[in-house]
Amino acid sequence: MDNTFIRIAKNELERFVCEVFIASGLDEDDAAVIARHLVLADLRGVDSHGVSRVQIYTRRLELGLVNKKLEPQVERESASSLLLNGKNASGILLATKGIQMAVQKAKQTGVAIVGINQSNHCGMLADYTMYAAKNDCIALASTNAPPNMAPWGGMERFFGTNPFSYGIPVGQGMDIIFDMATSVVARGKIILAKKNNQQIPLGWAISKEGKPTTTPSEALDGLVLPVGGPKGYGITFLVETLSSLFTGAAFGPYIPDLYKDLTRPQNIGQCFIVMRADLFQGLDEFKNRMVQIIQEIREVKPMEGVDRIYLPGEIEMEKAMERERNGIPLSPEILNELEEVGRRYGIKPGLFKNIG
Amino acid sequence: MDNTFIRIAKNELERFVCEVFIASGLDEDDAAVIARHLVLADLRGVDSHGVSRVQIYTRRLELGLVNKKLEPQVERESASSLLLNGKNASGILLATKGIQMAVQKAKQTGVAIVGINQSNHCGMLADYTMYAAKNDCIALASTNAPPNMAPWGGMERFFGTNPFSYGIPVGQGMDIIFDMATSVVARGKIILAKKNNQQIPLGWAISKEGKPTTTPSEALDGLVLPVGGPKGYGITFLVETLSSLFTGAAFGPYIPDLYKDLTRPQNIGQCFIVMRADLFQGLDEFKNRMVQIIQEIREVKPMEGVDRIYLPGEIEMEKAMERERNGIPLSPEILNELEEVGRRYGIKPGLFKNIG
Repeated sequence: MDNTFIRIAKNELERFVCEVFIASGLDEDDAAVIARHLVLADLRGVDSHGVSRVQIYTRRLELGLVNKKLEPQVERESASSLLLNGKNASGILLATKGIQMAVQKAKQTGVAIVGINQSNHCGMLADYTMYAAKNDCIALASTNAPPNMAPWGGMERFFGTNPFSYGIPVGQGMDIIFDMATSVVARGKIILAKKNNQQIPLGWAISKEGKPTTTPSEALDGLVLPVGGPKGYGITFLVETLSSLFTGAAFGPYIPDLYKDLTRPQNIGQCFIVMRADLFQGLDEFKNRMVQIIQEIREVKPMEGVDRIYLPGEIEMEKAMERERNGIPLSPEILNELEEVGRRYGIKPGLFKNIG
Repeated sequence: MDNTFIRIAKNELERFVCEVFIASGLDEDDAAVIARHLVLADLRGVDSHGVSRVQIYTRRLELGLVNKKLEPQVERESASSLLLNGKNASGILLATKGIQMAVQKAKQTGVAIVGINQSNHCGMLADYTMYAAKNDCIALASTNAPPNMAPWGGMERFFGTNPFSYGIPVGQGMDIIFDMATSVVARGKIILAKKNNQQIPLGWAISKEGKPTTTPSEALDGLVLPVGGPKGYGITFLVETLSSLFTGAAFGPYIPDLYKDLTRPQNIGQCFIVMRADLFQGLDEFKNRMVQIIQEIREVKPMEGVDRIYLPGEIEMEKAMERERNGIPLSPEILNELEEVGRRYGIKPGLFKNIG
């Protein structure tokens, strides 16, 4: 890590972000939910979905592109399903509410599905599947996103890097939380390569002329590629279907860019499928089996050059523990951005002490 | 295709396979289900899961490793969920029953989940998600398999090439049916490369010493790699959890090989998650939106060197139509195998006419 990064204590950062969202017009409780979410993303090392989003989120709230009030409307409901019209509130608030409702219903009926339309960027999906896992449920979560990826073989933006996430309860701090974009890599990695004057590997992206490229700037003007080619394309298509076609939200090409289109709401969709982990056997029995497979995976002999075998999502979990102790490293650029946002709302800068 | 392949009419092949399974001790109806399933796989070009399995399936039935009677026991049931103990019957029969029950329940409650333990190799998952889609349901299907893949970074067999499939109803012969192994490629492709004295691309497999290899024989003695590295590993882990840890079936390393271990049952698991496509909007509305996205995907400009943009699973669908017309091409090796199995049961060979 660049030594110009400054380590900020988690609570300090969360308090600042919360104040900013209160100042931008959100209810205190809602601001706290968003602050906790963004800082959690940074804790887990998913910096692309952390406080680096404060500026654009507040900007869209200010411009009325995102509704400051959380007033979703239940459009359809049954014992095991619910469709929420998000009424263009914060995606993080809507998804937080959505997963809570899905877990509540699954507790009653065994399995439940919650869809959200008229929603917005909901941050890091892992937060929602983590909640379900803490509540002894297995959860699958999906959201769609503005177009940055072509259907396999194509050269026009169509699908977002549509992420999906799952959570599996194990307990004892060992819940398995996995969260992936369906592109080969996040665009953030290409941006980073550009900053560092590095080439990117062939297969990450194509230029806007539709040609394979190793040049980051060509890749950023072009398209990212789905992970595993047609396989990632197939998964992206499923994520799109569940998140938007099924829920009534806008799909791929109809979603305006979060940053570049400040004229209209996004109408993004989310979908949560949640089931009780003890649906088919006792909860202890299920968790004991999970502990067993985890232990056996850890004992697998690593390949040459590999230190140890990680579980899905384990790197993020360990990073969260490390950053909880040592603070969250923020770049000078992000610090400037945050201080600027703070000034706009009269929240005095100089809040940030380097604890690193 | 090799010109020694012979084109067999679909109905002819299905009738032969059905007779074989009746002769091996299955009920007529059950034999018909298996015959239809295997021939459907060949129709779709998934030859690795087609009639090339007749020999091993009948062998395991003969040896009592698979129960000839379909007598599953309901271990748990609620309005929206069901756990089936397969009592070691044919995986194809159990999965066929499982998806029917899942669709029936989803029709009542909106969303349902069916798990199966004490099951066997269930063939091609696409058959089950196709059934759900025909019944206007969206379905996710998973099964685990004998170990051929290491957890990411490891060099010991642990996970199967755990496939998952989904089906989305569109109607008008346009249902989207996607089915993928979570490995980079099927082992069958490596076997083919070996036969053709070709190298395989780096990244498909590692040798048993844990080193990347381009030599097919080293790859076959070694391990296939998950698609997209840690991403495919994450998906494999989910498929394993839903199929086995959640249902009570055996997981990865505890599943004996279909071919090499003829001493004990496999105790494989399957899991089906099914939801009505009209849960959140009218069925016509949902299908119209699917038709719209399909049309728009087809209009995306292809990359240099690409003829057209396919939908997920469309190649298999088109192959099925072509083979329905022109017959299913079988290699001399598979023909010999089938004729040998036929002779064992007194079903006279010479059934096969080349219609190509």
